[in-house]
Amino acid sequence: MAGLPELGLEQFDPESARCQGVSGVLQRVGDKWSVLIVAILAAGPRRFSQLRREIPAISQRMLTLTLRSLERDGLVSRTVTPTIPPRVDYELTTLGHSLQQPVLALAQWAVAHLPEIAEAQARFDTTRERPR
Amino acid sequence: MAGLPELGLEQFDPESARCQGVSGVLQRVGDKWSVLIVAILAAGPRRFSQLRREIPAISQRMLTLTLRSLERDGLVSRTVTPTIPPRVDYELTTLGHSLQQPVLALAQWAVAHLPEIAEAQARFDTTRERPR
Repeated sequence: MAGLPELGLEQFDPESARCQGVSGVLQRVGDKWSVLIVAILAAGPRRFSQLRREIPAISQRMLTLTLRSLERDGLVSRTVTPTIPPRVDYELTTLGHSLQQPVLALAQWAVAHLPEIAEAQARFDTTRERPR
Repeated sequence: MAGLPELGLEQFDPESARCQGVSGVLQRVGDKWSVLIVAILAAGPRRFSQLRREIPAISQRMLTLTLRSLERDGLVSRTVTPTIPPRVDYELTTLGHSLQQPVLALAQWAVAHLPEIAEAQARFDTTRERPR
């Protein structure tokens, strides 16, 4: 079987800590805000206020939560400089940089195939009965 | 800025249909069952009953829902052979095969870096105050 051995998931047990960890990681890194923040920080460190300006649609709360989750996973580091007001910089860690390539590859796949997917969805929705 | 131009997301507007589409696709393809089914079908077509045997932990309902979502997105095709009982085969489409590489790359990243992420989480949880 291709794929599973490469992943080391031949004995797939989704209740195992390992599979739950992989699943959790996939769901977090696939989140649109995480993808976007990793893409922006790939260009270099950013202050909180810069990130807010570069992503006008994100709320302050959602930006805080997403950065904290990226920091907790070890993907982003947070540096506080005790000026007045304090300055907070965010930067990709080495681990965060290593995530950039696979995340961008997946996002590029999604961007490239979006029209095809939308067509498939429209076809499916018109030819299949709706669930009752 | 690296990353965003490559994605064509320089003018990122998460309310746009395009960004919502990309975000929806990322969240679906990052789902653990979708990743696993794409990985299994990469090896060749499978009957519904075979998939159930290969993924003992998935419920019949969740397998049905995940396959339907993959079919709706045009990633998996479903062929019914009108035998008694009817035989139902699932197969990756060309689009589904094209997804295999980026999804496996992301899953491999997650598997490879899981220990590092778990360590970062433990460190974060012991050194930061819990939110009140």
